[in-house]
Parts: sequence; structure tokens; C-alpha cells
Amino acid sequence: MTQFKSVLERCGFKTAEFTEGSLTVRSPIDGSILAQLQETPVDSMQAVINRSHAAFLTWRMVPAPVRGELVRLWGEELRAAKQDIGHIVSMEVGKIVEEGLGEVQEGVDICEFALGLSRQLHGKTIASERPGHRIMEQFHPLGPVAVITAFNFPSAVFAWNAALALVCGDPVIFKPSEKAPLSGLATFKALERAIAKFGDRAPEGLAQIVVGLTPLAEALVESPKIPLVSATGSTRMGRIVGPKVASRFGKRILELGGNNAMIVTPAADLDMAVRAVLFGAVGTAGQRCTSLRRVIVHRSVKDALLERVQKAYGNLRIGNPLTPGNLVGPLIDEGAFTAMQKSLETAQAEGGKLLRGGKRVLEKEYPKGFFVEPAIVDMPSQTAIVKHETFAPLLYVLTYDDLEEAIELNNDVPQGLSSCIFSTNMQEVELFISQAGSDCGMANVNIGPNGAEIGGAFGGEKETGGDRESGSDAWKQYMRRTTNTINFSKELPLAQGINFG
Amino acid sequence: MTQFKSVLERCGFKTAEFTEGSLTVRSPIDGSILAQLQETPVDSMQAVINRSHAAFLTWRMVPAPVRGELVRLWGEELRAAKQDIGHIVSMEVGKIVEEGLGEVQEGVDICEFALGLSRQLHGKTIASERPGHRIMEQFHPLGPVAVITAFNFPSAVFAWNAALALVCGDPVIFKPSEKAPLSGLATFKALERAIAKFGDRAPEGLAQIVVGLTPLAEALVESPKIPLVSATGSTRMGRIVGPKVASRFGKRILELGGNNAMIVTPAADLDMAVRAVLFGAVGTAGQRCTSLRRVIVHRSVKDALLERVQKAYGNLRIGNPLTPGNLVGPLIDEGAFTAMQKSLETAQAEGGKLLRGGKRVLEKEYPKGFFVEPAIVDMPSQTAIVKHETFAPLLYVLTYDDLEEAIELNNDVPQGLSSCIFSTNMQEVELFISQAGSDCGMANVNIGPNGAEIGGAFGGEKETGGDRESGSDAWKQYMRRTTNTINFSKELPLAQGINFG
Amino acid sequence: MTQFKSVLERCGFKTAEFTEGSLTVRSPIDGSILAQLQETPVDSMQAVINRSHAAFLTWRMVPAPVRGELVRLWGEELRAAKQDIGHIVSMEVGKIVEEGLGEVQEGVDICEFALGLSRQLHGKTIASERPGHRIMEQFHPLGPVAVITAFNFPSAVFAWNAALALVCGDPVIFKPSEKAPLSGLATFKALERAIAKFGDRAPEGLAQIVVGLTPLAEALVESPKIPLVSATGSTRMGRIVGPKVASRFGKRILELGGNNAMIVTPAADLDMAVRAVLFGAVGTAGQRCTSLRRVIVHRSVKDALLERVQKAYGNLRIGNPLTPGNLVGPLIDEGAFTAMQKSLETAQAEGGKLLRGGKRVLEKEYPKGFFVEPAIVDMPSQTAIVKHETFAPLLYVLTYDDLEEAIELNNDVPQGLSSCIFSTNMQEVELFISQAGSDCGMANVNIGPNGAEIGGAFGGEKETGGDRESGSDAWKQYMRRTTNTINFSKELPLAQGINFG
Amino acid sequence: MTQFKSVLERCGFKTAEFTEGSLTVRSPIDGSILAQLQETPVDSMQAVINRSHAAFLTWRMVPAPVRGELVRLWGEELRAAKQDIGHIVSMEVGKIVEEGLGEVQEGVDICEFALGLSRQLHGKTIASERPGHRIMEQFHPLGPVAVITAFNFPSAVFAWNAALALVCGDPVIFKPSEKAPLSGLATFKALERAIAKFGDRAPEGLAQIVVGLTPLAEALVESPKIPLVSATGSTRMGRIVGPKVASRFGKRILELGGNNAMIVTPAADLDMAVRAVLFGAVGTAGQRCTSLRRVIVHRSVKDALLERVQKAYGNLRIGNPLTPGNLVGPLIDEGAFTAMQKSLETAQAEGGKLLRGGKRVLEKEYPKGFFVEPAIVDMPSQTAIVKHETFAPLLYVLTYDDLEEAIELNNDVPQGLSSCIFSTNMQEVELFISQAGSDCGMANVNIGPNGAEIGGAFGGEKETGGDRESGSDAWKQYMRRTTNTINFSKELPLAQGINFG
Repeated sequence: MTQFKSVLERCGFKTAEFTEGSLTVRSPIDGSILAQLQETPVDSMQAVINRSHAAFLTWRMVPAPVRGELVRLWGEELRAAKQDIGHIVSMEVGKIVEEGLGEVQEGVDICEFALGLSRQLHGKTIASERPGHRIMEQFHPLGPVAVITAFNFPSAVFAWNAALALVCGDPVIFKPSEKAPLSGLATFKALERAIAKFGDRAPEGLAQIVVGLTPLAEALVESPKIPLVSATGSTRMGRIVGPKVASRFGKRILELGGNNAMIVTPAADLDMAVRAVLFGAVGTAGQRCTSLRRVIVHRSVKDALLERVQKAYGNLRIGNPLTPGNLVGPLIDEGAFTAMQKSLETAQAEGGKLLRGGKRVLEKEYPKGFFVEPAIVDMPSQTAIVKHETFAPLLYVLTYDDLEEAIELNNDVPQGLSSCIFSTNMQEVELFISQAGSDCGMANVNIGPNGAEIGGAFGGEKETGGDRESGSDAWKQYMRRTTNTINFSKELPLAQGINFG
Repeated sequence: MTQFKSVLERCGFKTAEFTEGSLTVRSPIDGSILAQLQETPVDSMQAVINRSHAAFLTWRMVPAPVRGELVRLWGEELRAAKQDIGHIVSMEVGKIVEEGLGEVQEGVDICEFALGLSRQLHGKTIASERPGHRIMEQFHPLGPVAVITAFNFPSAVFAWNAALALVCGDPVIFKPSEKAPLSGLATFKALERAIAKFGDRAPEGLAQIVVGLTPLAEALVESPKIPLVSATGSTRMGRIVGPKVASRFGKRILELGGNNAMIVTPAADLDMAVRAVLFGAVGTAGQRCTSLRRVIVHRSVKDALLERVQKAYGNLRIGNPLTPGNLVGPLIDEGAFTAMQKSLETAQAEGGKLLRGGKRVLEKEYPKGFFVEPAIVDMPSQTAIVKHETFAPLLYVLTYDDLEEAIELNNDVPQGLSSCIFSTNMQEVELFISQAGSDCGMANVNIGPNGAEIGGAFGGEKETGGDRESGSDAWKQYMRRTTNTINFSKELPLAQGINFG
Repeated sequence: MTQFKSVLERCGFKTAEFTEGSLTVRSPIDGSILAQLQETPVDSMQAVINRSHAAFLTWRMVPAPVRGELVRLWGEELRAAKQDIGHIVSMEVGKIVEEGLGEVQEGVDICEFALGLSRQLHGKTIASERPGHRIMEQFHPLGPVAVITAFNFPSAVFAWNAALALVCGDPVIFKPSEKAPLSGLATFKALERAIAKFGDRAPEGLAQIVVGLTPLAEALVESPKIPLVSATGSTRMGRIVGPKVASRFGKRILELGGNNAMIVTPAADLDMAVRAVLFGAVGTAGQRCTSLRRVIVHRSVKDALLERVQKAYGNLRIGNPLTPGNLVGPLIDEGAFTAMQKSLETAQAEGGKLLRGGKRVLEKEYPKGFFVEPAIVDMPSQTAIVKHETFAPLLYVLTYDDLEEAIELNNDVPQGLSSCIFSTNMQEVELFISQAGSDCGMANVNIGPNGAEIGGAFGGEKETGGDRESGSDAWKQYMRRTTNTINFSKELPLAQGINFG
Repeated sequence: MTQFKSVLERCGFKTAEFTEGSLTVRSPIDGSILAQLQETPVDSMQAVINRSHAAFLTWRMVPAPVRGELVRLWGEELRAAKQDIGHIVSMEVGKIVEEGLGEVQEGVDICEFALGLSRQLHGKTIASERPGHRIMEQFHPLGPVAVITAFNFPSAVFAWNAALALVCGDPVIFKPSEKAPLSGLATFKALERAIAKFGDRAPEGLAQIVVGLTPLAEALVESPKIPLVSATGSTRMGRIVGPKVASRFGKRILELGGNNAMIVTPAADLDMAVRAVLFGAVGTAGQRCTSLRRVIVHRSVKDALLERVQKAYGNLRIGNPLTPGNLVGPLIDEGAFTAMQKSLETAQAEGGKLLRGGKRVLEKEYPKGFFVEPAIVDMPSQTAIVKHETFAPLLYVLTYDDLEEAIELNNDVPQGLSSCIFSTNMQEVELFISQAGSDCGMANVNIGPNGAEIGGAFGGEKETGGDRESGSDAWKQYMRRTTNTINFSKELPLAQGINFG
């Protein structure tokens, strides 16, 4: 813990900050207390929001390429603090070191992407049908953006949203998960350092963080001064947030649950498929929104695949995520463990056959850490439990005979985040990514459903929320669009050739 | 009426269709019955939706450029029927002939635009950070689209939505306003003729129309099989529809109320401004969502402007919209008239001075037609009634001293649809369309707030709904986006340089 | 010939036009004289160009969507005249009926595409680094465009260029090949009819055609008043035109020779490959710039492929292209036949083995028609003659052992137009279209090198010219780009933070 | 000079490098020898080019976002060396310190822009007209790029080209002007340091510099292994390079002469105009390609403008560019001085009236430095000399009466690089940037013709070359485009509905 204190201090935490508060942060590894954080009072939220709005009026006037400079500085701070923030992520969420570092790298990547974007927030110039007229479309800053994140990507998801928001001219208010606020704070402090270097071109209140429980998020969701709410979490949460924001005519980016499948065809390279199953189903202890939850395998290669997968599972090292070589850390908390057990039971009740895993391990070393053997259940069909997202390393196996059937299974769940196919056959592959293929926001080929790069748009359809963040033109959601028709003639012709009076 | 019957028949109506139903359609001109339409039973809506879904499975597989051919044919049908449909619009909604024709022309325009789009539904190819990988983003058909429209654009708004939806691979279900179903039906029948020419590549159920009251719309809004609901109407309606669709993770395009202003600066060409005020405030009897509702005029030119505007108002010919030369037809119904009277009273109670208009006219000739003199009220400040959208030819005048103040007035209403400035000064003009300017979806220069071309994105911010239709990249809302990362190497590197196992 | 006269008349030719001139047009089918056309005097070229320039000054001011209407009308005329123009193409060039019709259809397609483009000639709005500044990029009309085409696509290539040029605001001057002027004239006359319907918004001289020999083309290439020369033809021609245009700082679109290959891998569907070989190598009697000239086949499937290809060649019906069922018409002239014979000799001298074909046939029926049996030559390596484009149905077969080698063969020719791979293996396919794959402008998968759709950019690299026409953003070449930095502040800050004085 | 030696050493020069060669580099300030550089032997050029080609084969396979990392590192090196490289630019070219620094800043800016681009080298996905087909367009690395630059932007122009080329996957060969090789070398050495940090992912030969005279450039221009030549310099040079590259079917980016005008209308803010004249005509001693060469002023404000301009000219401090406060440094060499004198004479012979300036000054202090008083000549009309680019601080004044006339004067020169208008009247401003306005590649409003930001496309029309570099989609020129039509069905339908056999 002394070491962890040093890490926090290097990340800019003052001792009082992590020792004198009412919010207890525990490590999922051993249940030890990592910090006692002060909570943001709910009744201060209006002031927080007002500060953000005031900052907006200044920040929107700062030219976008200058705003890009702030994000560049943030990227440098993240680069410099990569080891430390990665360590905090591991301690607080239980991710293995490599994944903790990878998460911070995503922040670095998005800052660089956003820096480039700062000169590319392109609208269109458009030819008018009227002489002496022209049309153009501009994208302008939108206003304060609330970023409400989940425990499983406590650093990267904030970076994704804030880098784009800041470049687009929007202040941010960050509400990290109460289960992983330290990682968020460390990422936020890197931004604060960048702001300090950036100097007085950044208005007070440009970036704010609020620490605490759901009521803080509710205040953000309900405020008419927050034109955009970006919320990552469960479908249950999205079903509440979506209508609330809609009822006040706000915009939202929802990144909710996934139920991500891999189709393995007879033409698959099974070795690659096995490795992708491993990283997909077991990485982050199955607690990514993009974790692999279903393998849909062709009957002819099922046995071969399962044999290899099980062998690979047998070699998995479960343990302290900070120890190099361990690939599976603990679940986030006891609730996660209980939910997994319940799903396992239901799955078996629905006809599933537990092929391996599911048991708690390392209970002696870590009586308060919920380490679990990744489980595989062979299902006779896609029953109710399979359509339900269990946030744990629990993989269902489904069997198919022809590809259309496999695609139907892939699509026949309420969620629509990610999916993939393993096949070397181009007809199979192209069908899967065609309009008749996967209905997910992401459909990959010969790589797993998880581990997206930041260059593409990230997000999914159906109960996943329908929105996108990160790359492509996701930045447009952080801006308001204005269509300008400009008449520089001395006439006043009407569109559609109308003659009025 | 005999003549009208011929028009309907030329548009493809069969006698029974418009004589034997429970829904009475009256002309706002004289209250005469135009038709008795059969209503779609609410309990048939599920079948309608199922047919649409079945059509989707076929239609999405038809290549987009082939789908474009259908829209081309529809454009030709609309072109051929322009006079007749325009006439129906005039009879049913009370628009003057020129505006009725202009509305059909919008349909022709959007069909041509959509035809071009059919080969330009461009996603992106994206460089991957990993060797032997590439990323691409495709846009695929989305599913059935419900198009729920208002009485004031009974033809064009359906055409806008349906032309894009059909090209994007989506079947449509059209629910026209119960106040103006004939125009919608006539437009729809043109589409049916196009489908007949297009032949059997169009699946049964590709385009359907349902006639009746709100419960039909509710069935569409609530169905999980309708991934996109495009609804045009009041903010009140949007406040209901938005959350309902959000709660089932559907998508929506909301085009709701506007409260559109014109800023007239000392550098304005007053002649042009006057003409734009006229078309903006009085055209369609003030019943466009983009109608001009507020003039924000600089104190130094206020008198000069008002003098000219009042003179122009004095020359307005009010009367039967089918008579050439008349510029102001009737309000849609008595409710509209009553609401206008109430707003006039409130405005005066709030300190406004009625400069002219507001009275009902032609009562003798048309005892059941609500013709009204367009009203102008000079307001001491932007009071509550001014922030409220009254769907009638009622124009408020506000006075300003410096441009920042005028822009603040422009923005200080709940709606955010359209706006404009009249000025020849480029610094004023550019400020108005800048990030510090109008917060509306449309901000025009030296043309009124209404009468958009179809090439730009149409729609507005805040209580207007936040969505866009028609031009630019509005088509993306009618498709689902899929991000594909494709690994064609024999390795399985992870993003962000992660090393797993 | 009476029938042909009727066709010409229906296409708008007056009798004097095709009977009283010095330019003799013969049919390659039987050498019969199709027309005697009047030639444009070289010394009138300056007047032609001046008229075009004058037309430009008017046409550029016509709004793009209005220009789109002209192209729409042209498309309708082409649609109406499809049978007749297709017939002329067959008579004049020797294409089979289906190909003649397909060529006209390309004209229809590009007109529709250009119609859509007329509202989508999008430049960009760009955020400036300076407060109170904005940047935008507009595309403006460029000026007169010379379109110089080859005999083999006497209708479509003009349509491709003219449809885009006209929508972009540019007048056109069309110089068809002296070997196929009738098809060009017929296509041009359809445009003239469209212009007549379009009315006086089209300036005199908007579209002009000049008939005759090379000096006419030279006048266009050398004129400083022609900012863009679009020339289709041989690499030899391009090597002259390119530098000439460059020396006067003009722009050019060169579509020159191709030497298009198909790679057939062990994972290919051989039936599909055979059919693609047939259409690719034999269609248009091998006289497309995209005709298949080389098959690069894996050693393991070579025999199987060649057996099927030879069988298919054996069933080819050679004969009058107007007779339904015939698939191979005559070569364009005796010169083409002689060149083919010479290439066959050289190929054999270089070690090639003539597998079949090469002989003249139907000499008795058509003593002046050069019908030839499509030839296949198996080459031991890619010798000099293989790297040379022979414009005839002469297919070389090359053998490979691993895919990298096949790609190297594909690329190791001076031309870079089109190419394709037949394989169901996605790793092979993706490699072929990757940066390490084909270096051609077009690289297709499981379709032949020829028969492009108009939605993509058409053209090739290296000696093919490097330019593009038709779809994607090829239209940008027909416009001039202007970057506008607009300062609407009252300050004058410099870029890069420079402080001057 | 000791100090300068330290600067060079800090920039990575070794003593031998700048003391032991045959190429003498002198400072235009005082004619002192700055360095003796070793020249690249002409007969080594083939080896240089071969190395570049070999590097290409490796570099193109490095994923673009990884290539972006190299450019990021280069940007950091430039940022760190900004003062030193800026100093070298001042010493070697005679720019004032602020401009030297600004030039390096452009390098930093373009590196950041290119970093963002590395994930945004977007091609398009395109819907096919055929079932089971899709089309996409990819941009792939092109090959070695030769960057031949002029003395006046010895650092930035290389950075512009190399940053884009490297991100696009192309090696670079840099040939700096023999008049300013040290600045180029210093910029190049920063790149070398970045490459060293980047490590072995960068192939040997990725970036090379060749030092010497024209024959080196010729070798690059003529080599078939250099697909893209980017050359900045005189129109005379472009007239040679363009055809040479065209004759071997290479691509080129030519940035040639400009003859940039400012229109000052009666609605101009004269204070701003005066400041823009000053920076435009006098900055860099009039030796920017975008320097202001012509003021086209409305008769009614001519006197007022000239009075202020002359007053401002009177306050200009001419002298050692390294001395803070000096705004005008020396001309590059005696030849430039002589050319200016000759133009002054001709201008007067053609009726011009020398208003002020033109004399050599500071001859005593700097007998070998050619400092000159910026000259203003009032011309009765746009005579031949005015249409000629004189690369010196020589400003012509032309008078106009109506704006169309002014625009005609603006356009009636052979060059087409940059232009601007000063006016607060939006009708004037918009006319100037419309299709009927300036025919230049850049048309600015209320800022001078020079000092572009890197976000827009930079370059000009007519004798300026017609190409673009820097922002917008200029990167496309550094890549090759490939159109891929992919058939994943089991059928082989042909485009345009053709039925073959």
C-alpha cells in the first residue's frame, strides 16, 4: 500500500484527497481499502453545471486548433503517466497489467486523433439552386458534456469522450463509477496538468469531476444545461437515461450492454480462433462490454475447437493481476460472482452442459477477492439466459449447420454491440459483414469482438444504445450543426421556384 | 366539387375510397366535405408492421442503385401529377396555389437527390494500426420507417422521408395527419404507381399508408419492429414520442416547433427584408414550422421597416387560395383561430401593442372558413407569449440596440429551428452564423427563415428536436452503421499494443 | 442500309448530314459505307473554342442544381434512344447488341449520378486557428472541357465526361474518334434535344462537337482557353498529350492503355473464372481498355482452367454483332487485325505456345470485315510482347507457384488500369487488394477486369495515365478549388502566431 | 559566427559537414560564408533513388497509425529546435526572426495534422448495383516522393510535403535550394533524430537529402522510380518539370509563381487593409510566393489608402533580420536586387509613377547585403510588367471604379495563387469568393494573400501549377487510389444489365 500511495502521489493526489472521505474504494484483488474519497455533495451539482456553462461561453470562442493544443498536452501527460495510471486501473478494477496499460494507451491515441481533428471539423459547402446564393453547413460547439462511465474502463472511456468534447469546444463534467473513481481521478488529474500548462486560454470550469453515487449522475441527466450526456453502463441504466434525456430534448451517447458472439466456420483457422476466444472471453475477466459471450461453431469443427479451447483454458494463469504472466484477475465484486453463479445454474437448468470452470478459486489467499475459473457451457439452443448479458467470464457454445442459421443466432439477442467471424472463406466473411449479416455495430473478421482501435466508430445497435463514440465521424455528436443559406444577390428568389406575390 | 372529384380520380382515387368512410375531411376554405375516408383499424396495425418487416428482408437485398430506380420513377410520377396534387394541397390545407405546387416540387427534388444518393451511400475505408488488417465502415439498411406527418406539409414531408428511406433500403409506413390525409394519399398513390412500374423487384408491403387518428401513430411509436420513427409536429407531441422511442431503444427523427426570428440591422436592405417578412410571416398563413414569428429590429431602422411592412401588409390579398393573386388563405381550423386570438390577447396583456391585423375576415363568404388578417404586435420585451409558438400569421416585433443583444433575443426561446439576419455588413452576418451567433439548426443570411432547399440538412436544435432530414448526410439516420475490422494476416495482434498471454 | 438510315433519322440526323461530307465512315462488319460526314475545318477551331469560353461565362452562373436539370433531360433522351444509339454503336464499332445497349445505359446511369451530384458538389468548411476567422473550400466551375474519345466507347465515354462537366458548370467540346463519329453524334444529338427542352438557360455553345482527324484534337490540346482536356486512347497518344497540356499549365484526364490480368488461385471457383475470362477477353472482340489480356494461373489449376476455357472458346459464336446470340464481332479495321497477327508471331517467337485461335474467319461472307478467332497463347514467362497492349482478343496465359509471384507478374507491366483475382480465400483476396497487391487503378475480386459500374472512380496508374473519371470524387477534376480564409473580426492576427510589427 | 556554429551543432551538424565542401553557403545579410557543404555527386543519384524504392517496399507495410508516430516524434523535435532552426532560416534567407520561427511552427503544425491524418486516410465504401457485390475505394502508399524546394521557405515546404508523404507511406528524397540548404538540413536532421527514436520500424533510406545544384533535381524529375515530384519554384521551372514528369506518366505537385492582389473597396476597414499591405508586400522582403504584389483600390479610397500605406512604409525598420524590431531584411542576392531594379524601370517606362522606395540601403554597413527600400508604383493600367512576378518588395497600385472591373484585373494575370479583398460589405465579399470572383487557389477576405494556415489546401491555378499541398484532402496526391469491386455471390452478373452469352 505504501507503493500504491506513491503511485497516487505521482499522479497528483494529495494525501488528504484519498484518506479523508466517505467513499470507500476497495481493490477487487483483496478487498483492501485503496482510498477514502470525498464525495461531491448533490446540492453542489447546480453550481458545477453553472460553472461548466460559463466555461462553455469562453471555450467555444477559442479556435479549434488551439483547443487541439490542450488535447495534445493531455496526451503527453497520459503518455508520461502511463505506468502509474495503468497500475491504478489494475489495483482498482483488477485488470492485468497489460490491459491497464492498454487502456491508458487508448487515451493517448484518442488525444492524438483529436489533435488532428482540431483542424478537420469539416462541414460542407453546398451549391444552392438559386443564383447569388450559397449554402454551407458548419459544426459549432454544443455545450457542456456529461461523461458518466462504468467501472470496467475507468480511464479510457473518459478520455475518449473528453478528448473529442474538448476539441469540439465543449467543457466536460466527469462522473466516474463509484467502483473505480481513482482511475478516473488519475486520468482527470493528467488533464488538469495539461490545462495548467495550456494556461489562461482555458476557462475555469472547463473540466470538472464529481465523485459519488447515482444522484450525481441523475443531476447531470436531468439538467437542461447539459446538451449532451454520454453514459456507459448497463441496458437497464440506458432504459432510464434515454427517455429522461429525450424528455428534455437533450442529446445522448449511450454505450450499453453487449452479447457478443463469434462464428467459427469450417474454413476457420482454429488456432487463431482459439486465441481470440481466450482474449475475448477471459480478458478483463469477461467484464468488457465487448467480451466474447457466445461461440457459434459449425458442427463439423465443434469438437476440434472445444478441445483446443479447453486446453487453452487449462493453461490460463489466474491470480493477482499485477503479477506478470497472470491473465485472469478477480471479478469486480461479490455481486458479480453471485450473478455469474446464478447464470451458470440457470444455463444448466435450461439444458446447458458445463464443460469447465465456474468455481471460485484462490479463496484462501484472497478471502475478499472473487477470482473465478472462466466457464464454458455448451447450450442445446439459444435459451433465455444466453440472451442475457452476464458480466463475467462465462462463455456459451452454440452449434450451427449452415451460415444463415449462425447469423440468425448471432442477431437473435436484444443487444447489438460487437460480433465476429472466423473463416478464411471470403464468401462467408463478406456475407457476415453484409446487410444480411451481423446486425451489430461492430462486425469483425478473424479477430475477436473486443479490442477496437480508436479510428473506427465504436458502439452498437438495439439495446446497446445505437450511438457511437471514438473515431470516424463520432465527433459530430459533440457539436451542433447549422445550415446556412446565404444570399449575396440583390434579389430574393424562393426555393422550389415558388413565386410569392 | 365535381372538379375536385376529377382531380382525385386523376390522382388514382377510386370513388369508394373517398366517399365511404368514417373520417370526414373538410376544406379549411369553406368547411365543405372533401372526402369520407376509410380509417385503418387500430387492430390491423400489427399486421401492417409485420408486412413492413417482411418487406424489409427482401428490400434490403435489392442493390441501392436499383432502389434508386424506384425513386426516380416516383419523381416522374410526382412531376406528372404536380398540378393535381398541388390542387389537393390547396383545397385541403388552404395553401395558395404557388405553395401547393412548390410543395410537390420538393418531392420531385428529393427524389432526384435520392436517386443520386443511391450510388453514394458512402462509408469510409480506414487504415488499421495493425499489419495485415484493415477497417471499413459500411451503412446498411435499417428496417421499417414510420413517417408521421403534420397537416401543414402533407405531401413534401412524406416525400422527404420516404425517398431517403426507400433508397437506404427501408420500407415505409406513412401516417398522414388526419387533417390532411388526401394530400398524403395522393402523394402515396404516385409512389404506388411508381412501384407498379418498377415491378416485382419491390416486395409487397414496401410502402403502406394508414389513415386515422393518434392511436395509429402510437402503435408505430411503440412497436419494437420499427427501428426509426420520423415524426413532424408539435413540441408537445415530441415530448411524448421521444421518450417512448428511447425507452425501446428505437431511433427517431423529430421535427417539432419553431419560433423563428429575423434580425434586421442598420445595414440591411430594407426592401429585401420587407419581402422576406411578408413571405415568412404570412405565407401558408403563418402555419409553417419555419414561419417567421419574430422580427428583431435595430432601433434606428425600426420605424422605417415597420412602415414598409405595414404598407405591404395592407396590400395583401386574403381569400380563396385557389384564386391566383391571393396570398393568404384560411387557417386550418377554428382551433387555430381561437389559439391566435388568445395569443393576441396575452401579448397585449404582456405589454404588446397591436400594430395591425388579427381580425377574422371574409366571414360572410366563408362562414366556415377561418380567414384572418395577419397580425403584427410590437412587444416591449420578449415576454412569455413571444417564446411560445402560435401557429398563425402573428408576428412579434422586438427592438435591439446592439447585435449581441439581438442574437441573445434570437436564442432566448425554447425552440431552435430557423433564423435569419438581414444585413449587408459581413461582420454582422458572419457573427450571426458563427458559434457565437444563432443557435438554430438553420441560420440564413438575407433570406427568410423559411423555404429551405433540399440540399442542406433540415431541422433544428433544442425543443425542435435536434434531428435532421432532407439533404447533406441526413440519410445516415435511415441506415445502420457497421464498423468492420478485417484481419487478413495469419497473426492476431491486439490493438493498443496489448500482449495477452 | 435503309434501316440504318431510319435509325440515324430517328436519332436526329438530317440526310445531308450523313451523305454529303468528306469523312467516310465504314462499318467494320462488312466495310460498307455508313456515312459521309462533313468535317470541321481546322481553322474554325478557334471560333469553336471562343464560343465555348463565352458559354462558360454564362453557364457557370447557372446554379448547379439547375444545371442538373439539363443532365436529367439528357438522361431521359438517352433512355428513349437507347435502342437506336446502341444499334449505331454495333454498326459502327462492331459491338454485339447487348454491349451496344450497355454502353448507352452507362450514359443513362452517369446522367442520374450527375443529377444527384448537382446538389452535392461539396467543399469543406474548416475551423481556423484564429479567433473571428473561418476557412472554407469551394469548388467552382473550371471552364471549357475538351472530350477526345476513342472508337471503342464512342458513346459512353463522352457521356461520362459531359454529364459531369455540365453539372460542374463547364461547357464541352467533343471530338469523337474518326473511326466512330456516328455513335458520338447520336449521343450528342440526344444532348442537343435535352438542351432544346431545357431552354434559354443554356447558353449558345454549351455543347459542341467537332468531326474530323487529329489536327482538331491538337487544336484543343494546345489551346490555353481549354483548362481541362479529357483524352481516351493509347499510351502513345497520352505521351504526347500529357506534356503538351502540362507545358501550358492545363489539366488533363488521361485514360490510356491497359494490360489487365486475372489471377486464378487454387481456391477459385473455376466456373466463375471461366465465364469472366470469356467476357473479359472476348467481349468487344478484346477491344476494351479493360479487356482481359493476361491470365495468371496457379500451376495446380492451370490444366483444369485451360480445358474449360478452351471448351468455352470452342462454343463462341463469331459473326454479325447485330445477330442475337453472336458474342464476337469484327475487329475495328485491318490495322487491328495485322497488329494482332504480328503480336501472335512475336509471342510464339518469344516461346509462347498458341493454344487456339488467331485466324481470320468469315472472310467469304465479309471480305471487308475482319473477324478473328479469339486466341490463347501459353507463355513460358512474361516476355516483352506480353507487356505490350495488343488491342484484340489475344489472351496470354502465365503460370505461378505462389501468390506473391502472381502479384509481381500482375504489376510487372507498364500499364496500370485494371486487374482481378478469382479466389474464395479471403487472405488471398485481401492481399491482392492491399498495398502489397495489385498496383492498378482497379482491382476486382471474383469479377473480371472489365465492366465497371459508374459509382466508383474509373482509371488507372502508371502508363494508363493516373487520372480518374466517372464516380467517387472524380468530379473534382472538372472544377477549380478555392480556399477562402475569412476574417470577420476587427483584428488581423497572423497564422502560426507570427507577430509582424 | 561562433554563435552560428553552436546553433548548427545544436541542430546536429558535425563540424566537417559544414566546413569541408564545395558548395558555399552565404548569408544574404552580409555575404559572409555560413558553410561549405559537401555536394551529393550526380552519379550517386541512382543509388539514392534505389534506396528510396527499397525503403518504400518496407515502409508501405507499416500501418499508417504507426507511421503517424514517426511524424509525431518529428513534430516534437521541431518544437524543441524551433529557436535554432528559425535562427538558421534568418541567417540563411534573411527572414526576420518572427518569420523564421513562424516557418518552423508550420512544420510543427503539419506534423500534428499528419498525425491525425494517419487514422483518417479515408477512402469510400460504395453500394454496388449488383446483388452480392460491394465496391470500395482504398488509398495505398504511392512510392518515393521527391521534394524540391525553393530558398524562400527552406524549412516549412519540406515539412509540409514530408509529413504527409511519410504518413501516406512514402519515403522522401529532399533536394533543398542551393541558396538555402542549411535550413533544409537542420529540418531534415530533426527528422533523422525522430527516425532514430522511432527505431527499426523505419527502413534505411526512408528519408534522404541531396545537396547541390539543378542536375540533382533533374535526376529526380526524370526517374521512373519517383512516382511523385513535388516542386516549388518559378513558373519557368514548372514549365520544364511539368512536361518532363508527364512524359514518363509521373505525378507532380507544382507550387509556382504568384501575382497576388488585394482589392480594397470603399467599404474596407482601411486600417486593417494597411496592416495587411504591410505584412503582405514587405514581409519576407516580398519574397513569398504569396507576397502581395498588386493593390487594386477603388478610386474613392485610393488617396486615403495610399497616404496611410506610405506613412506605414515610412516607419518600416530595415536592417539585420536578427535584430528584434526590424521588419525588412535583405533580398536573397544581387540577382534579386537587379531584377527588382529592372522591373522598376520597366514599370516607369510603362507609365507607372514610383511613389516611394526601390533604392538600395545600408550599403555601407552591409556592402554584400542587398537591403532595399520597399517600393510602391502607381500604375495607370495593368501593363506587361505588372503581370510579371518580380520576387521583391515591389507593390503595384491599380485603380478601379466598379467591383467587376477589379475582379477582372485580379484575374487578368497568368498566375493564380492567392488574392484577397478588404471590404465589410457582404455582397462584395461574397462576389469575390464566388464562381464569378477571384480565379485564384486562395481567395481571402479581410486578411492578406499570404500567411495561410495549414488546415486548408494550399496552391493555385493557371501558371501557379494547379496542384495543392498541406491541408484539406491534399494528402490524396501522395497515395494511389484503388477501386475494388468485390463479388461475394456465386453469380457473375454484369454491370449495366448486360447479358453476355
